[in-house]
Amino acid sequence: MSLSNLDLIASVDGFPYPHVNPSLHAATLSTYYTLRVASHPYPLGYMLPSVAAVFLNTPYWSLDDESRTLTLTEGTDAAERSAAVATTLEALRKTGHFKVLDKWRNELYPVYGQGKELLFSVERSASPLFGVVTYGVHLTAYVRDASGGLKIWIPRRARTKQTYGGMLDNAVAGGIASGEAAFESLVRECGEEASLGEELVRKRVKTVGCITYFYVRDERAGGETGLMQPEVEYVYDLELPEDVVPKPGDDEVEEFYLWTVEEVKEHLARGEFKPNCAAVMIDFFIRHGMITPENEKDFIEIVARLHRRFEFPTL
Amino acid sequence: MSLSNLDLIASVDGFPYPHVNPSLHAATLSTYYTLRVASHPYPLGYMLPSVAAVFLNTPYWSLDDESRTLTLTEGTDAAERSAAVATTLEALRKTGHFKVLDKWRNELYPVYGQGKELLFSVERSASPLFGVVTYGVHLTAYVRDASGGLKIWIPRRARTKQTYGGMLDNAVAGGIASGEAAFESLVRECGEEASLGEELVRKRVKTVGCITYFYVRDERAGGETGLMQPEVEYVYDLELPEDVVPKPGDDEVEEFYLWTVEEVKEHLARGEFKPNCAAVMIDFFIRHGMITPENEKDFIEIVARLHRRFEFPTL
Repeated sequence: MSLSNLDLIASVDGFPYPHVNPSLHAATLSTYYTLRVASHPYPLGYMLPSVAAVFLNTPYWSLDDESRTLTLTEGTDAAERSAAVATTLEALRKTGHFKVLDKWRNELYPVYGQGKELLFSVERSASPLFGVVTYGVHLTAYVRDASGGLKIWIPRRARTKQTYGGMLDNAVAGGIASGEAAFESLVRECGEEASLGEELVRKRVKTVGCITYFYVRDERAGGETGLMQPEVEYVYDLELPEDVVPKPGDDEVEEFYLWTVEEVKEHLARGEFKPNCAAVMIDFFIRHGMITPENEKDFIEIVARLHRRFEFPTL
Repeated sequence: MSLSNLDLIASVDGFPYPHVNPSLHAATLSTYYTLRVASHPYPLGYMLPSVAAVFLNTPYWSLDDESRTLTLTEGTDAAERSAAVATTLEALRKTGHFKVLDKWRNELYPVYGQGKELLFSVERSASPLFGVVTYGVHLTAYVRDASGGLKIWIPRRARTKQTYGGMLDNAVAGGIASGEAAFESLVRECGEEASLGEELVRKRVKTVGCITYFYVRDERAGGETGLMQPEVEYVYDLELPEDVVPKPGDDEVEEFYLWTVEEVKEHLARGEFKPNCAAVMIDFFIRHGMITPENEKDFIEIVARLHRRFEFPTL
């Protein structure tokens, strides 16, 4: 198996585009339900019918099969709506309805409205059930050798991890919880995941943009497949001195490798990276002039699909 | 007047998105004609009805008011199609139908099909009549001072220039002609527009991605307004030594300024940059950590709209 860069992007940005393939998009959309919040007439996420059906006749929710819409009707502010969502999810967790809820995180993810206001927060493990946009931080750590060549620090996820176990990752990556600022989330994760000190991180890390893609979960994500996960990942670069070595700070990472660009590309082509981490690597290679219009025939499509504009509001 | 970064992006990416605002997009689209090539059943560009109407009963073209489509029917390969397009445009130029053709460039732009094959080439000044995707290169040249701060070289376009006269520009920018490779086009433009030597350019220029946006031309572009111009601009960074000073190589540039980031931001907010050059500057600031999720509330929308995926095929 040798995957192209476009194959790798397609595997993380799998939801069809309305204007590029209108009939496929319409057909795909017609099989889903749309999540809304009462008095906010716009979509917040797409849900599988099998998921939406579970909300039939539950308190706080209104399911309309005609318009294929699930609406959260309870609550007039974020606190009230979040409480209603939490109550529903606690009940669903207990009944064992959804496998994704077995990995309950006790961590809240934000869902924003068109005015960038917080509409409600939702338990992290449940966010793909609703198909709402989630937010994270991803950092690429690298060293520059004497000849100017780059080597990149690549961790391997613990093989015991339920999600993407044994796959390759970015040096630091994590989700942004409700109320947390992106950069502060990154600083915390740098300590937890790579044992990188706060002072070094604040001084050396460079904010370089974000990638956005519409992921459709497969079996590697764990739990139900086909759940939709539109994601925003804020992207950071960190050039490390040669004497700073990232070390796993918890049991989620097995080992860090220090690889040349060519080595990273080989592992990418073999499909060994977690899908969204492959996307972050490709974005890094584009920004650093290693993937160019001259050596990548799908350059324009790749760049555009790394920065998808969602039909849902974002922060 | 103080323009936000999102205002600046919106002024260069003015065409509505189908999934973000379906009704506006449908209404907008219903007022246009779609350009096609026979046996290639997909859109290549959008045209104003006033432009499409001129092609009624002309040889080589078929105008269908029912489907609002203009189809190039002549030719079975790129050479034959290009010849037919050239013949039509020469005739239209002589009759003085379109103001944009007064700026005839004798330069051909490529139009690609879904297999990335060249479908035909079209005289540069005519490309906005057809609304086809055009390609260019934009370079930001900067110097790093002793304290690590950046200063950016910004040219002012000659006030006598018919298009965007007197506005601020990127250090080097130009269109990519049919058959030309992006980087070679950049090398040529660096010499012509900023007197930067080929050796320095090949050694120091970094390819850093591309921006893509859907521009709707206003009066500053010259010629007819409302013409559609979806564009791909390959983006390059060049860190210059302090002793290399870009100099206008032709009469298109009046003067080069060396400005701090803050100075550039002030001129951006005053709307003094050519619209797509403002977009390149904003992309630069994002990649260099000067516009961040923390200081720009519209960060995600800006990044996505700088990398639009078109409904038309691209290279």
